[in-house]
Amino acid sequence: MVWQRPDERQPYQLRPVSFHKGFTRFAPGSVLTRCGDTQVLCTVSVTEGVPKFLAGTGKGWLTSEYRMLPSATQKRHERELLKLSGRTQEIQRLIGRSLRAAIDFEVLGERTLTVDADVLQADAGTRTAAITGGFVALASAISQLLQQGILERSPLCGQVAAISVGLLQGEPYLDLNYIEDVAATVDLNVVMNQHLGIIEIQGTAEEGSFSRTQLNQLLDFAEKGIQQLLIAQREAIVDWETLYVGDQGSREA
Amino acid sequence: MVWQRPDERQPYQLRPVSFHKGFTRFAPGSVLTRCGDTQVLCTVSVTEGVPKFLAGTGKGWLTSEYRMLPSATQKRHERELLKLSGRTQEIQRLIGRSLRAAIDFEVLGERTLTVDADVLQADAGTRTAAITGGFVALASAISQLLQQGILERSPLCGQVAAISVGLLQGEPYLDLNYIEDVAATVDLNVVMNQHLGIIEIQGTAEEGSFSRTQLNQLLDFAEKGIQQLLIAQREAIVDWETLYVGDQGSREA
Amino acid sequence: MVWQRPDERQPYQLRPVSFHKGFTRFAPGSVLTRCGDTQVLCTVSVTEGVPKFLAGTGKGWLTSEYRMLPSATQKRHERELLKLSGRTQEIQRLIGRSLRAAIDFEVLGERTLTVDADVLQADAGTRTAAITGGFVALASAISQLLQQGILERSPLCGQVAAISVGLLQGEPYLDLNYIEDVAATVDLNVVMNQHLGIIEIQGTAEEGSFSRTQLNQLLDFAEKGIQQLLIAQREAIVDWETLYVGDQGSREA
Amino acid sequence: MVWQRPDERQPYQLRPVSFHKGFTRFAPGSVLTRCGDTQVLCTVSVTEGVPKFLAGTGKGWLTSEYRMLPSATQKRHERELLKLSGRTQEIQRLIGRSLRAAIDFEVLGERTLTVDADVLQADAGTRTAAITGGFVALASAISQLLQQGILERSPLCGQVAAISVGLLQGEPYLDLNYIEDVAATVDLNVVMNQHLGIIEIQGTAEEGSFSRTQLNQLLDFAEKGIQQLLIAQREAIVDWETLYVGDQGSREA
Amino acid sequence: MVWQRPDERQPYQLRPVSFHKGFTRFAPGSVLTRCGDTQVLCTVSVTEGVPKFLAGTGKGWLTSEYRMLPSATQKRHERELLKLSGRTQEIQRLIGRSLRAAIDFEVLGERTLTVDADVLQADAGTRTAAITGGFVALASAISQLLQQGILERSPLCGQVAAISVGLLQGEPYLDLNYIEDVAATVDLNVVMNQHLGIIEIQGTAEEGSFSRTQLNQLLDFAEKGIQQLLIAQREAIVDWETLYVGDQGSREA
Amino acid sequence: MVWQRPDERQPYQLRPVSFHKGFTRFAPGSVLTRCGDTQVLCTVSVTEGVPKFLAGTGKGWLTSEYRMLPSATQKRHERELLKLSGRTQEIQRLIGRSLRAAIDFEVLGERTLTVDADVLQADAGTRTAAITGGFVALASAISQLLQQGILERSPLCGQVAAISVGLLQGEPYLDLNYIEDVAATVDLNVVMNQHLGIIEIQGTAEEGSFSRTQLNQLLDFAEKGIQQLLIAQREAIVDWETLYVGDQGSREA
Repeated sequence: MVWQRPDERQPYQLRPVSFHKGFTRFAPGSVLTRCGDTQVLCTVSVTEGVPKFLAGTGKGWLTSEYRMLPSATQKRHERELLKLSGRTQEIQRLIGRSLRAAIDFEVLGERTLTVDADVLQADAGTRTAAITGGFVALASAISQLLQQGILERSPLCGQVAAISVGLLQGEPYLDLNYIEDVAATVDLNVVMNQHLGIIEIQGTAEEGSFSRTQLNQLLDFAEKGIQQLLIAQREAIVDWETLYVGDQGSREA
Repeated sequence: MVWQRPDERQPYQLRPVSFHKGFTRFAPGSVLTRCGDTQVLCTVSVTEGVPKFLAGTGKGWLTSEYRMLPSATQKRHERELLKLSGRTQEIQRLIGRSLRAAIDFEVLGERTLTVDADVLQADAGTRTAAITGGFVALASAISQLLQQGILERSPLCGQVAAISVGLLQGEPYLDLNYIEDVAATVDLNVVMNQHLGIIEIQGTAEEGSFSRTQLNQLLDFAEKGIQQLLIAQREAIVDWETLYVGDQGSREA
Repeated sequence: MVWQRPDERQPYQLRPVSFHKGFTRFAPGSVLTRCGDTQVLCTVSVTEGVPKFLAGTGKGWLTSEYRMLPSATQKRHERELLKLSGRTQEIQRLIGRSLRAAIDFEVLGERTLTVDADVLQADAGTRTAAITGGFVALASAISQLLQQGILERSPLCGQVAAISVGLLQGEPYLDLNYIEDVAATVDLNVVMNQHLGIIEIQGTAEEGSFSRTQLNQLLDFAEKGIQQLLIAQREAIVDWETLYVGDQGSREA
Repeated sequence: MVWQRPDERQPYQLRPVSFHKGFTRFAPGSVLTRCGDTQVLCTVSVTEGVPKFLAGTGKGWLTSEYRMLPSATQKRHERELLKLSGRTQEIQRLIGRSLRAAIDFEVLGERTLTVDADVLQADAGTRTAAITGGFVALASAISQLLQQGILERSPLCGQVAAISVGLLQGEPYLDLNYIEDVAATVDLNVVMNQHLGIIEIQGTAEEGSFSRTQLNQLLDFAEKGIQQLLIAQREAIVDWETLYVGDQGSREA
Repeated sequence: MVWQRPDERQPYQLRPVSFHKGFTRFAPGSVLTRCGDTQVLCTVSVTEGVPKFLAGTGKGWLTSEYRMLPSATQKRHERELLKLSGRTQEIQRLIGRSLRAAIDFEVLGERTLTVDADVLQADAGTRTAAITGGFVALASAISQLLQQGILERSPLCGQVAAISVGLLQGEPYLDLNYIEDVAATVDLNVVMNQHLGIIEIQGTAEEGSFSRTQLNQLLDFAEKGIQQLLIAQREAIVDWETLYVGDQGSREA
Repeated sequence: MVWQRPDERQPYQLRPVSFHKGFTRFAPGSVLTRCGDTQVLCTVSVTEGVPKFLAGTGKGWLTSEYRMLPSATQKRHERELLKLSGRTQEIQRLIGRSLRAAIDFEVLGERTLTVDADVLQADAGTRTAAITGGFVALASAISQLLQQGILERSPLCGQVAAISVGLLQGEPYLDLNYIEDVAATVDLNVVMNQHLGIIEIQGTAEEGSFSRTQLNQLLDFAEKGIQQLLIAQREAIVDWETLYVGDQGSREA
């Protein structure tokens, strides 16, 4: 039996992706990111100063917060007060780690970039949309900081995008929506950079296990999806040539 | 010296107001409310059951939550974790009290309506925008519940809108924006119903005090503004005639 | 049908009010305030220094905390641990805002006055009793600080008192007790200064709404009540002439 | 060198003790207890039902809460929000344990007595004042519950009082005030019943240690003090003969 | 330049591993797990009942808690009160997910197994030691529950072990200790079952990125390590043949 | 009827006691303390600096934290998150107070010693085991700090041990285990120094009361037990003669 995608996409096909830049006005970077029915408002703010462990090093920092609005899901879910769920914490740590790979913190100087990812509508893939859209917001914010003269040089030394893949009926599918996410036996999130180097990989067998062959099939699909997302990001960032300073191959492991 | 409004409005003039219905898909009511640069996403969800103090009475309930996204303000502000600020609690209690005046809870039955007001962009007047837009979302939600057969009759027995007025240089101004809000010596929020009956009035002298004459001038302006908002709401609610069952004069004090 | 007051007062009549000064010894100001059966212990402490946002400005600050003892109400209520209820926060913010109108913070200098209002017995009107009695405690504290040479000049530039009024059977009544408070359809709290200028007005229709005519009737009663409270305060503050430095008309809006 | 008591008491002399019954009206038992300058408002409330571990046993329970008002001490101290200090928790557990020794819980039935001890003014000995005064409030509450017919028989099977003793300059002193409490090298709190049987003993050497001979001297003083407190309690409880049902020697260890 | 392992191990060599069964007596399963200098006390408790979302399904559950003693690390770290760090939550969710793969919850019935992993000494690899040792504790607990007749059949349908691998100087190394963990540019944790099927894979580039070729090298090493751990587990579980009921190939994705 | 000890000890007989030094490696002092089936891991860490109230005095401090692992008890108990129970706070305050009696804080200088007592297995007497074993860990830590040259002189000016005694069937018994602890009507914990001077005494009648004669019998037993514990401690601390600098009689009350 073969999985029929509810929206009739090909197994290796992304959902429509779009970046609505300048969705709000007060944060230097603000992008309403849509991946199919998933909508994440990604904003990037900048504050002078860094966390204690970096004070005096001349280096900056990037941190992230992730939340869902209560009405984002099919059934209203409670806001997290008092304490964040493990899921929320995992996701915001992942977003922060991933996007830090795009920034040269010595060029940024002792400033902190905060990426807020607020999910307005959730149809699966919110964490990868937050990373992919967060990168566009990051570029917008840097663009504005350069224009305002707050930054002299662009610290954007990498490009980062993320996608989910999964196994359904034992076969790989790209960019699962909610119905697929629930049905999948294996769920894999992949974050890659402009060279398709892996920044983060997280795979879980919700049921049973998966083989290394299956892992490789999933990664083939993820690569394909991320290649398209990298292009879409660059199209959305009109001043990409100015902002992106490249990594001169120096930071590869 | 006379106050010059930064956006050149007349003293008694509202900011442009709009209601973007169906902004998100999963909550029965979802309205992106814009009052000038203030943007509040108002959603209304319904759950079976009521708080303890109403269980078994056959009556429903309406409650509200209010939050600002961290990037909504000119300078990013921290999310409220652990505990809500006094300001946030005051506002969400006000929204709940105000919108409860629009519902006949016996007709609603033992269900709870939750109005979430999430401020995406804050240029003053967020609480009044949340009430005015929350009413439109409430009507949308009731409309959907009627169509789905969850409700048999509409419980919408009142109409509710709210506006802020303030004293600047001793003179009254309607619908202050952020710059005006900071400069005002007196700030008054007024919630009224379809007959311009007062549901809630809250006025504070940030500096000095104000006379009863000034209070009356402020209320004159508030009435004018609310009259326009009541019309704008009814225009946005296409099935108003069906939804609104009126109050038959029975609930006036 | 006309409301019969349970204690046979006239509609415009206050409950007996008294200020027991020096009820405790360690705080510079300590007043057990009684309004009928409502008893609020109001104390005023002084600490050197001010909150961050005022540091270095040469100006002082006044803040307030409000709590009910668990046994203050007819049925024991739980203490608020972990987080304060919205009601408590609203009230303590109101007390602070109101009493700040009485102080010239440049004369106070970089000191913080803390007004603690602890309700020992609650028969309605606790927030207004806290403001009215808190003002007497404030004067006591300033008197002591002057005697101790901690202050050179009195910063007491205003007088502040508060009262509640309500609509019962559509008619206005002054200074509601618990039975009346529960029965009232409209509840209005008013804070005024020595010139009967309005510092704060908060009115809520618990049921239905109220007209501007009714609002004016309620304010007439509130003015009458506050006039008497202002006299009672001055009688309780034996060194009023020394302490009160007047406002030279300079701070009116 | 011999310690000179600041208030010129004999080493074995109590501070003046008084019990102001009916200080507040809503709790069945309410006693303002004064031991010198220490003032503790002790109230006793009753609620139907018991904690889970007793449900269905037919037995009642007694619990206690202890707090200091912020203005009770010479220097204002912060209220405990979020979490109670270790000191507060120790004290309220001690009060509860001690007063439970006075009640026959089978006679009480599945009800919970809550003893609230709120310190209005603190001049040392607040926990022992809370126990001694709490017992009087307990008797008042039982008296009222009997009169209201809520209880048929009195569950008061014991009498409980408490006092502090301390070593100053190596010599024992009874009922320390704040100055003495700070200066003492050993601090001992003793709770006893109507037969001078020990219910609780807690002694701490703040400095060095103390011998068993010194412990016995301290206990001699404590016995003397408690004998007087037991008499004062019985004088304050006018219907003592009716309320006290005795222990028939049955509960001694 | 090639990495010199501080303990002179081969790149593909595990640290010495041991399982001290029955380290404590009260939990049905208790294993002090040592992987080099890392020591984790893994205990498994059983309680009747399951979380709400499973009630009435006839299926059991397994959950996990992970903590470090404050003295486990080279520099004492604070206990987590009020809220768990993101790291702690991620780890305990990972342990729970991984070990759930070993249990047939229909056979377990409506019981909850709690795996407590308390790190007594931390020299890196604590989460993988917790999983590998937690599995042995799980088997011990099941063995005891069978002997006590609480379970009739063994629910142990899988075997689970975990290991970390990392890139140092661009080359793969197995089972990093603390010094290596800090120096690694890529850190990968792998959880596998008895067939070397992947249950979970989590890889992070702390610096730069890694290629799919490097990922495969890392997975080769992980497989080797896990094969040895699976053998060590079976040696430690003396009644393995009785306990392990196999998966009949039925749960593979 | 006479109590039969479940382990057939004499009434005045201790359980076997042992101190496993160096149980973990990273804290300067680490001792797994066993008293019968009770096992407490006591570690001592040192940090530069002291709490605010001591800053600048040249004196050091000692503080303690106490926790039970969830699997330490016969039935798993929940970890304390959010807030510590009153019991936990009482115990860790007691441990801190008791062990501070062993240290000359002027010799220690502005450093803080933290004693972590983590109960791995609980068969009653965990707080006294924590004190007795904590003292051995303290001596180990000081020994290491001297060897590392961090301390020049030993601040160990006292020896501290603790034991519990209880009344069962009206007769005294030493060092109760869990079964006895539950059955006892009176429970007394005693902390003494090298001269059998009392540092702390805490006695509670769980039922009824106890006489001064019984208190003296209990103290006789406690003295006997503590004498043996003092010997066992000195045997475990191999460099006792070097570490212990004595108290020169100067700190006795």
